[in-house]
Order: sequence, then C-alpha cells, then structure tokens
Amino acid sequence: MSNKLDEQLSKKSADEQALWSLRHTAEHVLHQAVKELYPDIQLAMGPATEEGFYFDFDASPEGKEPIVISEANFPKIEKKMREIIKKNWPLVRQEISPEEARALFADNPYKLEWINQIEARGEKVTVYWTGEPGRQGSMVDLCSGPHVATTGEVKAFKLLSVAGAYWHGDEKNKMLTRIYGTAFPTQEELEQYLFQLEEAKKRDHRKLGKELELFFIDDMVGKGLVMWLPNGTIVRDEVEKLAREMEKKAGYVRVVTPHIAKEELFLTSGHLPYYKDSMYPPMEMDDGTYYLKAMNCPHHHRIFLHKPRSYKELPLRLAEYGTCYRNELSGTLAGLLRVRALAMNDAHMYCRKDQIKEEFAGVLKLTMEYFKIFGLQDYWFRLSKWSPDHTEKYIDEPENWEYAENVLREVLQSMNVPFVEAEDEAAFYGPKVDVQFKSVIGREETMSTIQLDFAAKKRFGLSYVDKDGKENNEVFVIHRAPLSVHERFMAFLIEHFAGAFPLWMAPLQAVVIPISQDQQKYAEKLTQLLRAQNIRIENWDEAESMQNRIRKAETQKVPYMFIVGKTEESNETVSVRRRGKKSDGEWAVTQLLEKIKKEIEEKAQW
Amino acid sequence: MSNKLDEQLSKKSADEQALWSLRHTAEHVLHQAVKELYPDIQLAMGPATEEGFYFDFDASPEGKEPIVISEANFPKIEKKMREIIKKNWPLVRQEISPEEARALFADNPYKLEWINQIEARGEKVTVYWTGEPGRQGSMVDLCSGPHVATTGEVKAFKLLSVAGAYWHGDEKNKMLTRIYGTAFPTQEELEQYLFQLEEAKKRDHRKLGKELELFFIDDMVGKGLVMWLPNGTIVRDEVEKLAREMEKKAGYVRVVTPHIAKEELFLTSGHLPYYKDSMYPPMEMDDGTYYLKAMNCPHHHRIFLHKPRSYKELPLRLAEYGTCYRNELSGTLAGLLRVRALAMNDAHMYCRKDQIKEEFAGVLKLTMEYFKIFGLQDYWFRLSKWSPDHTEKYIDEPENWEYAENVLREVLQSMNVPFVEAEDEAAFYGPKVDVQFKSVIGREETMSTIQLDFAAKKRFGLSYVDKDGKENNEVFVIHRAPLSVHERFMAFLIEHFAGAFPLWMAPLQAVVIPISQDQQKYAEKLTQLLRAQNIRIENWDEAESMQNRIRKAETQKVPYMFIVGKTEESNETVSVRRRGKKSDGEWAVTQLLEKIKKEIEEKAQW
Repeated sequence: MSNKLDEQLSKKSADEQALWSLRHTAEHVLHQAVKELYPDIQLAMGPATEEGFYFDFDASPEGKEPIVISEANFPKIEKKMREIIKKNWPLVRQEISPEEARALFADNPYKLEWINQIEARGEKVTVYWTGEPGRQGSMVDLCSGPHVATTGEVKAFKLLSVAGAYWHGDEKNKMLTRIYGTAFPTQEELEQYLFQLEEAKKRDHRKLGKELELFFIDDMVGKGLVMWLPNGTIVRDEVEKLAREMEKKAGYVRVVTPHIAKEELFLTSGHLPYYKDSMYPPMEMDDGTYYLKAMNCPHHHRIFLHKPRSYKELPLRLAEYGTCYRNELSGTLAGLLRVRALAMNDAHMYCRKDQIKEEFAGVLKLTMEYFKIFGLQDYWFRLSKWSPDHTEKYIDEPENWEYAENVLREVLQSMNVPFVEAEDEAAFYGPKVDVQFKSVIGREETMSTIQLDFAAKKRFGLSYVDKDGKENNEVFVIHRAPLSVHERFMAFLIEHFAGAFPLWMAPLQAVVIPISQDQQKYAEKLTQLLRAQNIRIENWDEAESMQNRIRKAETQKVPYMFIVGKTEESNETVSVRRRGKKSDGEWAVTQLLEKIKKEIEEKAQW
Repeated sequence: MSNKLDEQLSKKSADEQALWSLRHTAEHVLHQAVKELYPDIQLAMGPATEEGFYFDFDASPEGKEPIVISEANFPKIEKKMREIIKKNWPLVRQEISPEEARALFADNPYKLEWINQIEARGEKVTVYWTGEPGRQGSMVDLCSGPHVATTGEVKAFKLLSVAGAYWHGDEKNKMLTRIYGTAFPTQEELEQYLFQLEEAKKRDHRKLGKELELFFIDDMVGKGLVMWLPNGTIVRDEVEKLAREMEKKAGYVRVVTPHIAKEELFLTSGHLPYYKDSMYPPMEMDDGTYYLKAMNCPHHHRIFLHKPRSYKELPLRLAEYGTCYRNELSGTLAGLLRVRALAMNDAHMYCRKDQIKEEFAGVLKLTMEYFKIFGLQDYWFRLSKWSPDHTEKYIDEPENWEYAENVLREVLQSMNVPFVEAEDEAAFYGPKVDVQFKSVIGREETMSTIQLDFAAKKRFGLSYVDKDGKENNEVFVIHRAPLSVHERFMAFLIEHFAGAFPLWMAPLQAVVIPISQDQQKYAEKLTQLLRAQNIRIENWDEAESMQNRIRKAETQKVPYMFIVGKTEESNETVSVRRRGKKSDGEWAVTQLLEKIKKEIEEKAQW
C-alpha cells in the first residue's frame, strides 16, 4: 500500500513539473495576446502558480492613454489566445548578453530593472521567443523557462479574474493590472478545476459562516478571535460531545487547566525562549511573569507530576478541549483557518515504552472512527521520521527512534491504511503521524496529528514507580488531536457539508410548517412534543406562503420540514420533507419521533 | 416576611455589639491571666474579632528569659482566667492625660508607642481597669472599650490556638506570640461554635480537594489558577451539564466568546479605566492592545449587536460558562475562594422594559430549582436599591429605578420568598437581588446575583426595531449567575456535602468488591455491564481484605459498594452497601441497574 502511494506521489511530482511548463507557456500566450490587442500596454512580469498563472501589465504607461481591462474583455483576449495557440508557434530559448537584452527591451523599464538585477547577481540572461526568434510577429520575453515545446500544447485554459497589484508588491510602487488564468492538460481537468472553484466559492466557510449565523469576527474584540454565535456553538458543542463520549469509552480521563501560567512553566517546557515569537506578550503580575499558553502539554505534564505515579496508573490518558493562543500577525488572519485562539481536541497519554504500540493503535482507531462518523474518506497517513544522517536536529536517543518508528510502521501496516513515509520530517522530540486530507474543494491539508515525545520525560522529570518499587524515568508521551482544533475543523466541516450538516449536528434540526392558520394549534403541539424529546425544532407559523417557508428552510439548510395541513391534523400525521428532496411521505407522529431519534442517536449520514 | 427579617437583622446587630464587648472583656481576662502566670511577659495589644478575640504578647522582652507558650499551657491559663472571672471584678473606664498614661506604662514600649500616636492624633487617652483602679491586684490596659460591666459576665470561653505574629503585621518588626480564643454568652453557643469549627476543619475544601483529588494549585503554573484533576473535572462537568440542560429548557441560547479582547471593547464597556486595577496587565500586539476579560458582558453585548435585532427576538438570553480573569494580589489568594481565573455560570438577557418582570421571575425560579436539586435550604434574598438621596452615585433614570425596584419587589413577594431590602446598596447601573447563604459551617455568604442594567443600552448603543418598524433604544440587560463561578460554587459544594457528593455528581459512583479471587470474573462482568450504562464504576479486585476495601471506599466517599461473594454470584445478585450505612440488602443485577439509573437521572438527594 505504502509503495503504491510513493509511486503515485513521485509521478505526481513529474506531472506537476509538466503542468508548470504548460501554465508558463499559457502565460506567454496571454501577454502576447494582450500586447497584440493593446499595443500601448507595457509588459511587467508574470509566473506560473499552484493554481494557474498570472501576468502584471502596466496599463497606463507614461505618455500613453490609460487602458482599462475588465473581465468583460476576457472573451476577446481568450479569442486572441486561441489564435496564437492555433498557430502552434515554437518556444525558443536564447542566452544573450546583458547588452543585447537591454537593446531588446530598451523601451520597457520593468525588464530593464530585471536585467540589471540578473547582471548584478552574475547570472545568465535568457529570453524565450514565441515564434521564430527575431521574425516579424514573434514575441520575446525575458524568461528562464521552462516551457512546453509549442503554443499548440496549450489546449485547455481560462482567464479567471483581474485585479490591481503593486510592482514588487510594494504599495509605494505603481499599481499594475494583474490578469489571472489557469491551464490544464485536458479540457476535462480544466472543467473539474472550474467546478471546484465554483464549489469553493459556494462552500467558503466565511460566506456560509455568515449566512448560517455560525460565527463572526468582531473588529472591536480583535482579529483572529472567533465569536461563536448560537448556531455555531451548537455545532461546536456536538463535535465536543462526540469527542467526550468517544474518549470516555477509550479510557481517557478529563482535566481542566488554566489558560495562563508563569514563565517558569514555559522555561521548563522550552517554549521559552524557542517559541517566544509565536506566544502572546508577557504579563507582569505581583508574583512573576505570566503568559497565555501556546500549548496544553506543559499543564498536563504538571498534572502528571502532582503526585507520585505507579506503573498501575499507566497508560494515563489526560484529555482536555484546551484553548491555546498564538501570536499570529494580524495581517495573516483569515476566517477560521488562521486564528489567534484555538480550542484543541487535545490529549496526552503517558505510557511505558512497551505500551507505545497499543496506545498508538488506539489513537489511530479512534481517529478513523471519527472520520467514519463524519463520512470522510479521502485521507491517508504520513509517517514522519528522523534522519540518521542529521542526528543533530533530533533528540539523541537512536534506540528509541528506531524502536518507535518500527512500532508506528507496524501499526499502520497491520491496520492496512494508506500511508507514506517521510524521512527527516519528524519533530525534534520524536516521530509523528499526520493525517492528510484532500478536501471537497481539492485542497490538500493536514487535519490531525499523532506525535510521540521522548523529550518531555527529561525536561519535566516524568517518572513512575515500577513493579519492583524502583523509579523508572522512561515515560513516553503521545500528543494527539484527531479532531484538530475547533476553529480549523469547523471550517473543514462547513466546507465539506457546504453548510448542510447531518441531522445530529444541525443547529436547527426541523421546522414545523402549518399550511394555514387553522393548523396553528396542532403545529405548536407537535413542536412542543418534539422539543421535549431534545429535538431542536421551531414552529414556523408566520403568515407567509408555504413555498416561501420551505425555501427559507432550504436556504438555512434545515434537515427536516414537517408540513401539516387539514389532512395531517385529522390523521395525526406529518408530511415529511427532507432537505434537498421533495417528499419523504406521510408519517404518524410517534413513528416520526422514533425515526428521528434513531437517526440522531446513530449519527446517520445525510 | 420582609419585615420580620428586617427586625431579626437589626436585633442581631445589637446582639453583635454586646458580643463584641463580651469578647473584649474576655481578651482582658486573658492577658491578665497570662501576666499573672508569666510576670516577665510584655503585653503588646489585642482586639475582639468576628470570631472571638486574640492578644499579642512579647514573650522575649529584652533582658528577660524567653517564655514559650504552647497549646499545652492552655489548661493552666484557662484555669487562671476562670479564677479572675469568678472574682467578678468590675471593668472601670478612666480618661487620663498622656503624661499619666506614660507614667502608668513606663516599662512597656508597645503601650508607649500607642500613647504617642494617640496624642499625635489629638485623641483622648483612656484606660480600662479590671478591678478597682490602682488597687493591688487590679490590672490596667490602654483601651477605648467598650466592655461588659464585670468579669463575671464572661461565662463561656475557650482558648483556641497560638501563633507567631509580627508587631503591626510588619515582618521587619519583632515576632510576638498571639493567643487566639473565643467567647459566647452561653455554653451552648460556644459548643455550637466549636462544633462548627471542627466541621469547618473537616469540611475545608482545600483539605478535601486534596484528599479526594479534586483539584490542586501548582506553584509553577501560578497562584489562584486552579488545576482541575479528573475527579474534580467530573463534578465540575456535572454542574455545568445541569446548567446547560436547565438553561436550554428555560429558553437560553449558548455562545462561546474569546477570553481576550482589544482595549477598545473595555473602553466602551467602561472597565477601562474604572476597573483597570482588577484587570490583568495589557498585552501589546501588532494591531493594538489586548486584555484578558474581567467579565463576559462586553463580549455578549457585541453578539447582540452583530446584526439588527427585531422585537420578535426579545427576550434574547445568551448563556456561556465564560472564564474571567481578576488580578488579585498573590498574597490574598486562597484555595477556590479567591482565585485569579473564574469560570462563571453567566448569562445576559436582553429585554424590553415590559419584559423585565417575567425575565426576573424566570431567573428567580431557575435559581430556586437549582438550590432544590442541591438540597440547599438556608438562604434568603437581598434586594439592593438605589438611594433617591444619593442620586449622584447612580445612573440618572429615576423612572426606571422606581419601575424596576417595584417590579423586583413584586416578584419576590408573589413568589413568597424571604427577602430583605437594602437602600443605597445597588450597583451604579441598576438594582440587584443577591442570594445570601448560611453555610453548614456557619459562614454567611453571597452565592448568586441577579442584576438589572440600565447603563449598557447607552454605552453599547443596544437597540431593536419595534412592531412599527421604529428603532427603540430601551434594551434592558439582566446579568445573572445563579450557580456563581465554578471555583466558588465547588468550594461551597465540597464543604456543604463534606466531600460526600450525591450519586449523580460523585466522581466515582460505585465500586465492585469481590470477596475472594473466585468472584473476579463475575465482578468484572458486573463492572463492564454497569459501565456500559454510563455508570462511573471500578472493579476493586485487588488482593486485600474486604474490610480494608470497604474502608477505602468510605474514605473516598464512594456512594455505592457492590459486594459479591459465592452466594451473590450463584444468585446473579449483588449485596449493596450505601456510603455511611451498613447494608442496603441483596439486589438482582437488573433491578439494581434500574434503581441506580433512576437515582442518577432524578438527581436523588443522598
């Protein structure tokens, strides 16, 4: 399993290089097309990117009329690009002297600036010609490549957007016009990408977070600090409840630790001084210096240490949804994905060396159970190992490294899960296993992590009394956060479900819609009945058309609509409508209640 | 109801004055007795106190042999005190000149220091004689009184402890010997007090917190920051779960807000600058100054404000177990009663003026429901009002004051609860109702508070759109915390139950005790069965005598012990033992399970 994935990954890497060349050529086709359409425009620069390509144009060069390019002009530009592609011109590389280059781009201050810089670095100047070098109609650009062989290879492309961008990204420089586009080897791949782009826009957790009133960021409270609204709090609480239940079953015990601690604790843990830049500024109190915690482990280690431990107590699994604080730059904060306070699905297990295997297997099993509940499938594992060639980067316990890496590999193999191995990628203190996800919108991300820690035992002096009454200092720590942090996991869930949460975690699980005012009483009785059974339900009896109320329920992504008219009232039934579907038939009230309770309890997939 | 309590309270105040005089005289009897027994000892000073009295002696005056007084000497001193009491000497007040005083206390540097200070303040010097002034055997002390008429009135007294104390409480001064005692009008009251003192020692939440492993304070983490151990976390979580359930039923919605915010928020709320000394120091970030929150209201107000509100949304009840931070001096921190981070059973209701009455009644009802569940009875309410004579101390809305105070009084009266009224005791922003408790150890304390707030609407610009589509700025806020803060309420509960929590909140609810190794399998089966039903149970099958294991369970205050021997195994039964009782009979397993589940669900009193 592991080998196959390795192959896929290295293949992907070659593919990626080819894709890069293709996009780079598409970018040349773009600036050629624009230059042909708007001869006065000045070409600045543009690269291929992870997502496609872009090019920056100076649309108001000195002494010329300013040119305005908007998305309305894209069809015209794309048409011109297709013409250039059709001509199947070759891309020809030339190495020239700086003097030749300066002559070639004499009227372009942007290129001249680059040429001077290349010369100053002592590098070679290369240009790429589209078409035969020097021929009338051929286009030349200062460029180090690589490219595909001919413009004809650019088959599937699309311009996406236009935006302003400062030269060198510096607002003191001139504002240029940046055109974004993308290109793929096939039309099918392009369409897949465009579909995902549309989906990403629709599913954007910031957009849905606002529409569904899940959370907001308040400037007066501060950037990167999430204010969870009632709807978001319900979803968050359901996730936390699940974690508590599963962790209880798996033999964890819960603790609650303060969000702050004295400097001494973080000096012991090593967060100070090594991690200081990521921590909040210190607070001077009358008895010392305090910090907001960046991680929960130091507090948990102190709980381990608060009394002598016996071998009988190991493994000890301390769990806490602990809130940590990271001093990110305000400019980098975005939605739920980059925040300054994060509530972590944290736990630390303290175990003997011979217990590592079982503990690690337990965490892996738990993690996969979670994913099954949420209906997540597109994931694999990455085992990050140390490097025996760079031992200086890692804690000096070669035997433990070898033992632990073997154990982790054995578990991954025995559980028959897809995984890759990455050498020289471990943490300083031990090997780790990350869970990699391919999200519905095509983004690859690390969701969870399981880390082995050989360093804590020495730093904190962790020990236990073994069977023979002797003190043993070999306490291994596992850090794990299968459900990541609330903020990040919620962003992931919102986008995964496009806001249409499964019944069990939906903020509002059902609405009752009486067809006319005559059913008001029946509707209210029904609402009270279901609410008494802990179902999150509202009676939407306002004087508005049924169709409008159904539309509203669909927009708010409410899983169930219970429509009651004259017939339903006299039959003591409900016409059930499921979110996104027309009808789920007429149900007797008691049966409906049972059905819903069962779906909630079983956390049925929706 | 209210009048009767008023009477009681004013009577108590006169009683208190009498008690004070009695204890003051007992203190004179003490120092006279000690001086007669140890003629070399130097008398420093001593007062009557809330709890009794004390006197500071200089037991190593210059040029004399040091005297050691320990509790072993108390019988001798008490005997001498009884002799002085029996003589029924009068206490006689004299006003004398500073010169006369200096002559009288010429050999006592402590008294001379006081005399100089009294003279410097321009006050009169008074002394009290025990016995006829100036007569052989009479005792004199610098003292402003008051006292009872004769030493014979001191009937019930007891010396309690001895400790070191610096003169003026300053460690640069000499260490004196302080003897503590107490006195009451009757022997019965003294014994009641001594019993409560014993109880208080036994029930001390710091002692039980340690013994039952509920929490600890870790010097490396910081003073006043509670580390909740697994057992304490269970109790805490059960309280929180109760709050969540009850608040849900009462129509609250939950939110989660960050623990920090920008300066701007606290400038708007007025916490800065008025409350700054109680807040943690500021943290400078790249986008402004941040503070840990001292209260949750500013964050909740921002949630109210995050979108335009309609009259249909009122009352809006936002609930959160929010953690607040108070910068208390490290020297004042003690156990759970004085901490620097507190998790508050907080909620804010936003309502129209005509909704105040119903909202307030709802909170009162909820509060009393909680108390009933915890079996708390010894409480009354205190309605704190403004003073029309000191309007400058209060927000200037006389009509709202009158309206609100009347409404609160009406609700208290209609619910037929005991309450007193206190004029000029309200908060700046509105009247409040406190819940006063007499704890099992005789301490009177304010547990919960319900506060009306007229000021927030203006400070934060709270408003809603009324039925006619017009903006209305009259949004009234109710702050409430029926279950106080976790830290304080847990201290109260631990002491109230002496650590023997009712079944539903006990960290460990039951233990299985197999009589011999032969019942191990049966014991384990039983444990698994009950654990699967979410009962917190352990199988205590270690090779130790049954009696020892029962004793251990009693010490750990485990509600149920399930004892299984040969008979029980063959009958598929369990011999049940309830905490503090001998036996609860033999139960069939299924019936036992039902019984326990019912007791947990109903939160049965234990």
